[in-house]
Amino acid sequence: MKVIFVVCDGLGDRPIKQLKNLTPLEAAKTPNLDKLAKNGINGLLHTIDHGIRPGSDVSHLSLFGYDTKIHYKGRGMYEALGLGMKMNKGDIAFRCNLATVKSDLTILDRRAGRIESCEPFIKELNGALINGVRFAVKAGVMHRAAIVMSGYNLSYKVSDADPHEVNTKVKKVMPLDNSKEAQFTADVLNRFIEFAHIKLKQNPLNKERSKKKLSEANYLLLRGAGYVEEVQSFFDKYKLSACCIAGAPLYKGIAKALGMDIIDIKGATGTLQTDLEAKFTAAKTALKRYDFVFVHIKATDSCGEDGNFTEKKKFIEKIDKAIKTISNLDDALIVVTADHSSPCALKAHSADPVPIVMSGEGVRVDGVIKFGERACANGGLSHIVGLNVMPEIMNLLGKTQLYGD
Amino acid sequence: MKVIFVVCDGLGDRPIKQLKNLTPLEAAKTPNLDKLAKNGINGLLHTIDHGIRPGSDVSHLSLFGYDTKIHYKGRGMYEALGLGMKMNKGDIAFRCNLATVKSDLTILDRRAGRIESCEPFIKELNGALINGVRFAVKAGVMHRAAIVMSGYNLSYKVSDADPHEVNTKVKKVMPLDNSKEAQFTADVLNRFIEFAHIKLKQNPLNKERSKKKLSEANYLLLRGAGYVEEVQSFFDKYKLSACCIAGAPLYKGIAKALGMDIIDIKGATGTLQTDLEAKFTAAKTALKRYDFVFVHIKATDSCGEDGNFTEKKKFIEKIDKAIKTISNLDDALIVVTADHSSPCALKAHSADPVPIVMSGEGVRVDGVIKFGERACANGGLSHIVGLNVMPEIMNLLGKTQLYGD
Repeated sequence: MKVIFVVCDGLGDRPIKQLKNLTPLEAAKTPNLDKLAKNGINGLLHTIDHGIRPGSDVSHLSLFGYDTKIHYKGRGMYEALGLGMKMNKGDIAFRCNLATVKSDLTILDRRAGRIESCEPFIKELNGALINGVRFAVKAGVMHRAAIVMSGYNLSYKVSDADPHEVNTKVKKVMPLDNSKEAQFTADVLNRFIEFAHIKLKQNPLNKERSKKKLSEANYLLLRGAGYVEEVQSFFDKYKLSACCIAGAPLYKGIAKALGMDIIDIKGATGTLQTDLEAKFTAAKTALKRYDFVFVHIKATDSCGEDGNFTEKKKFIEKIDKAIKTISNLDDALIVVTADHSSPCALKAHSADPVPIVMSGEGVRVDGVIKFGERACANGGLSHIVGLNVMPEIMNLLGKTQLYGD
Repeated sequence: MKVIFVVCDGLGDRPIKQLKNLTPLEAAKTPNLDKLAKNGINGLLHTIDHGIRPGSDVSHLSLFGYDTKIHYKGRGMYEALGLGMKMNKGDIAFRCNLATVKSDLTILDRRAGRIESCEPFIKELNGALINGVRFAVKAGVMHRAAIVMSGYNLSYKVSDADPHEVNTKVKKVMPLDNSKEAQFTADVLNRFIEFAHIKLKQNPLNKERSKKKLSEANYLLLRGAGYVEEVQSFFDKYKLSACCIAGAPLYKGIAKALGMDIIDIKGATGTLQTDLEAKFTAAKTALKRYDFVFVHIKATDSCGEDGNFTEKKKFIEKIDKAIKTISNLDDALIVVTADHSSPCALKAHSADPVPIVMSGEGVRVDGVIKFGERACANGGLSHIVGLNVMPEIMNLLGKTQLYGD
């Protein structure tokens, strides 16, 4: 038996008055997910633990069985890897937004008017050398980019330059511990950010944007310092060959960091328009070559963070339709879950547990007939935590080592 | 209130097509167990933790409240104690099979044709002295025996001689760490195994077996090195006088290691033919003298490991019938559970949780009316782990120490 592991980002939600006090998942028509629930074993999942509100990075590490208390060293590395950047031991990575600031460094727009691509703005920053530290800069989707610092004596214990809100001044990067390395890294970063600001202001594209009354893309808002940690690969840990089908860079980056192969799908964009049919068809094909296929779907989270419950419900129905491609496979264990809840009412991640279903040969089918936050609470898995997921899967695959004798 | 603690080894299972997708326990007619469920509080038990596939030794230690991460030092000691062997501090114990090997040491039969007893073969090995290490050898049931090494500078960090499969060569015992002790222990063991092989080949009984075309019992397949660890006794830990009623040596050995008295019952064999009525009658009688009576039933596990779901179901019905002797007792807390699942489809232990019921004065009776893997998932105990069991029992007995003030 092989595994398709589907993570619908931020799927979990809370009851919404306009949906008759149902969650978007409960309100959506999901015959295929419900069938998986009916033929499977269900439960509620706390990806880190009860009451912990997790970011997408730690929750995915935890789902794959990596204890984040030991292995999590910041998000930057995953973003950089996900954009195809190379990282070496000792490197420090960040994600960043290309933003708009006034001359006094007050932030006007954290996304520089959601520019189509930051590539033409940042290309001249790539390769900058400051105090012996080399900066690699690569564009992501729209206003997003990643930055990798390479040099000696760097530390990831530095604060964000991004205050995460507008109409406030950008922050100086500060060391987060008393080490010389953190002080040095913060100094070099502040010099780099200043250098980038000057270069960006001088960029002819910004002069054009200014004429057109568009927000200038004139500042790098860095956040999420992370350093490279070598961990035991997913294959070495479980003896399962694994691949990842995802749109957004973070998830590809996490998969890459764990040694999974990345299958790039045309039309997998991580947005509402993503081609889910193509992703699930690719997943089905990938089963021939891999033991474990990780499919990541992003837009459920984006809807939650936008507070758009109508769109979230609609997108869940789109997932349900597309998942039919894999939901009737023999010889496959289908696992569908989420990395965290993103309640529309909060427009943010929350610690509410998420539903999980495992459907395949040998599972103790329970009485749950609907895939939803509250229905799954009565499932045979009861409440589990993220680090339980892979052991449960390995048990169903019959690949668990005996403990004791 | 006193306690009868019944462990049905390997009771848990998975849905079986031929049983209309029920487990053997769910398919069996079990009016008495169901009555316990109806009058009790029920749950699902992970003897070690979610997704951990436990051996019988660690799962029993855990059920009795001993943290195996601290206290488990291999199975050998329990097997030896269970056969009534004496062990002193520093001794190393093994279990072993009397097996049949070819002249090139390829294993033909790991059980030497399931000989009736290995006693006449091994008695001349008992007391052997090699490099100052004394070997005690004692026959168990059929082809099974236990071995205790006594001497200075011994280590239990040595590998098995038993490759656990036929048509493959026996293994040399190897040190499992870099210590001198492990190297010395492995050397002495290999010499002892060679010595035993020579002696066994020369045994007139084997010449007879050879003439009759029976498998010769000519090799000792050692496995499960373990060393004596003194732990706090069950009585010191809980202030409950305890006894054990079991057929198979391992369980008596574990009970002995924890300082429980062993009540030997004629007809308690650890097989399908075991006299369960006699065991439960003895348990009822033992309640007069003991606070805690541990009853172990082995054959559910053997059926699972043989993949024989019809026999497993039948044997569970036999347990149900016999358990009536104790299921209506006043002033007794009756606990029925298992040490792990042994799904017939896997013919091996699995990590699937097992049902548990606690029935007696004061329990919060829940809505469960059937004792089974899925019915108990909806019980008032929800999911618990092995180390929760004794604290729950102590609470029901009103003997739990106050924490805090």
